[in-house]
Amino acid sequence: MVPTVSIRHIAEHVGQSVRLAGWLYNKRSSGKLHFLQVRDGSATIQCVVFKGNVSPEVFELADHVSQESALIVEGTVKEDARSPIGFELDVTSVELVSEAQEYPISPKEHGVDFLMNHRHLWMRSSRQHAVLRVRHQLIKAIRDYFDDNDFTLIDAPILTNNACEGTTTLFSTDYFGETAYLSQSGQLYMEPACQAFGKVYCFGPTFRAEKSKTRRHLTEFWMVEPEVAYMDLAGDMELAEDFLCFIVARVLEKCRPELTALERDISKLEAVQKPFPRISYDEATKILAEKGVEFEYGDDFGAEHETVLSENFDRPVMIHRYPAAVKAFYMKADPRDAKKALCVDVLAPEGIGEIIGGGQREDDYDALVERIKEHGLSEDDFSWYLDVRRYGSVPHAGFGLGIERTLGWICGLHHVRESIPFPRLMGRLSP
Amino acid sequence: MVPTVSIRHIAEHVGQSVRLAGWLYNKRSSGKLHFLQVRDGSATIQCVVFKGNVSPEVFELADHVSQESALIVEGTVKEDARSPIGFELDVTSVELVSEAQEYPISPKEHGVDFLMNHRHLWMRSSRQHAVLRVRHQLIKAIRDYFDDNDFTLIDAPILTNNACEGTTTLFSTDYFGETAYLSQSGQLYMEPACQAFGKVYCFGPTFRAEKSKTRRHLTEFWMVEPEVAYMDLAGDMELAEDFLCFIVARVLEKCRPELTALERDISKLEAVQKPFPRISYDEATKILAEKGVEFEYGDDFGAEHETVLSENFDRPVMIHRYPAAVKAFYMKADPRDAKKALCVDVLAPEGIGEIIGGGQREDDYDALVERIKEHGLSEDDFSWYLDVRRYGSVPHAGFGLGIERTLGWICGLHHVRESIPFPRLMGRLSP
Repeated sequence: MVPTVSIRHIAEHVGQSVRLAGWLYNKRSSGKLHFLQVRDGSATIQCVVFKGNVSPEVFELADHVSQESALIVEGTVKEDARSPIGFELDVTSVELVSEAQEYPISPKEHGVDFLMNHRHLWMRSSRQHAVLRVRHQLIKAIRDYFDDNDFTLIDAPILTNNACEGTTTLFSTDYFGETAYLSQSGQLYMEPACQAFGKVYCFGPTFRAEKSKTRRHLTEFWMVEPEVAYMDLAGDMELAEDFLCFIVARVLEKCRPELTALERDISKLEAVQKPFPRISYDEATKILAEKGVEFEYGDDFGAEHETVLSENFDRPVMIHRYPAAVKAFYMKADPRDAKKALCVDVLAPEGIGEIIGGGQREDDYDALVERIKEHGLSEDDFSWYLDVRRYGSVPHAGFGLGIERTLGWICGLHHVRESIPFPRLMGRLSP
Repeated sequence: MVPTVSIRHIAEHVGQSVRLAGWLYNKRSSGKLHFLQVRDGSATIQCVVFKGNVSPEVFELADHVSQESALIVEGTVKEDARSPIGFELDVTSVELVSEAQEYPISPKEHGVDFLMNHRHLWMRSSRQHAVLRVRHQLIKAIRDYFDDNDFTLIDAPILTNNACEGTTTLFSTDYFGETAYLSQSGQLYMEPACQAFGKVYCFGPTFRAEKSKTRRHLTEFWMVEPEVAYMDLAGDMELAEDFLCFIVARVLEKCRPELTALERDISKLEAVQKPFPRISYDEATKILAEKGVEFEYGDDFGAEHETVLSENFDRPVMIHRYPAAVKAFYMKADPRDAKKALCVDVLAPEGIGEIIGGGQREDDYDALVERIKEHGLSEDDFSWYLDVRRYGSVPHAGFGLGIERTLGWICGLHHVRESIPFPRLMGRLSP
């Protein structure tokens, strides 16, 4: 019996008869030859149907079969230097599993809306396929990094009654008579968790009901958030740096073919090496001034400022100590300048902008209560969160990394919508 | 400079001076000795403070320091056969990082509501700590299994406009004027994804707004859902069997100390070996009849029936071919008996009940349209899902495994609420 093999592992079967179960990606014909590009989800291979090697019915089938029809192909694996994967199949038989109707996605240019409406089919295309394979390896790299460095995975809840940064960008749902919000971040949960486990991370979907249609925003996106007890801002920056170097190196190791298919300039990724530049907010504002970019000192950076700053470096840049006023209430004030927060944003190069936001958390009970009041938040709502400071408070820090923006950077995507299998944007809830 | 080390790695430092950064878990005193149980999140170690070895201030501190205070302890690592971890610390200094207020969780019995209100602190307790460490290893085992077997991770969306199994158990939210539902399953998305990638899985939170307060139900729980193109029901059962054997073996390999701490009967887990019994629904109803359990042929099994059936076997049992009428519309009908579905539920032993539900999907376009109509669903809503059958339809199958119920089984928990860091149940949305 001929074994069914995966195209990804075809090299292990040179000279053997194998069976491939897949779909017709493309084909061309030339007299007594049909060249079928067959994909099985793991890779694509050229299957050569020579009239002299198959029955007349099979030759006829190979001539007429429609794009994306499901096929089982048998043949002999041959090395072929011209093939992108190094091998092709000398076909002995083709079985039609099901004939596809006329496939809506053709090589011609389609509009974005059309492609997004057909996202479930679009992901069969080589470019989208490559992006989502890199996504898988990126996520695996992220988890491996934390797992191999003694972090404990502590999943944060999605449904919460905390509306800690205001309700305007929160999705809400009725929860048996209460109002529940969809989480924007697991951080409030990681802080007590790091007191229990030392080093923790959460990794899950987060939600933002922002009415903005930019190439950087999704309403539903995945975020990884490590949090470490007994770590300060300097340690947080070291962790972010080490982590980013690891995940980029891993993707380079595992996904060369995909990055090549995406025509990504790999040298830009190879430049992601320690040390990353560390500049203060104040230094960053000077760079903007030198470049003649309009900016009000004291404000947060907008996308255009981040673009300018990130283009200034060949690797991720870490900007620390923003004005406390533009950062969340839980950031620890800089003991050397109480108007600054012990926070860090990491901007990816090539104009991508922020991919990491983090910092050291306020670990003093009284100072945090003060900040909660200043921000007009309810002390009662944060009672459990304040317990972190009541029972064994320690310096602690962490960060959040957005997966889609990071993947967009690594793959060189123009729009973040291609970096998640089923993107959710304003006006886009299907498929 | 004395290195700060993790208690988990203390064995690497025998005879050396080390520094531990942690919290006081417990203590007892005996004249010139204080025995401090110090935990750092990775493990707990006994730190011996001998009056002759430390300053009077440190000895005094060790006498009075409160439970869960944050401490930095220095000392020499010594082997100790009586210690559960094999080592203790001969203390030379103790530094108080922060004094804890009176800790609310004491060794006395607390009510469940009290503990759940203090979930963020309760996870410091040895039992909860052990459960959540097993959770981490279980999740890692699950991901490793699929990653190492050529599956591609394809995250399903959480927000959807599909209400495919009725809206009564769905949470909903306003999505810029549309209604979005929180996903109960990623399966509808995995089906087109497996046509693009061959073998896929999703792994994320899912939601069920069920008004039930049982020990088996959470409103928010994590689920992994593999889906494979060109796989039938028999292959699906083989996959489920192989997968369960792998994850249980991995947890046994990685989590012996935790399972021991939980007083889990490990022999019950060691019995999880291939082959699992495969019985049809009809055979299962006969077992119920033999045992004198009331049951109406044609109904789905309830919790009490699953308990009886699962207690009948020493390992997971796979029950296949339920009546189509009690299963979802997308299940493929058994060609030998159209009233049966090509589905499988896997029941964990020891009375746990269903941990896996899956089956072969209807891959015939016309048959699926028929089922959609029969179920009173809108063909329009499922147009993109029907594309799976329009463009390269192939036999395909998959399943879903609920993490919390599986972890509850592996850890021997009475109630599923302990198997997730921040459980969400009816009436429980905080912390």
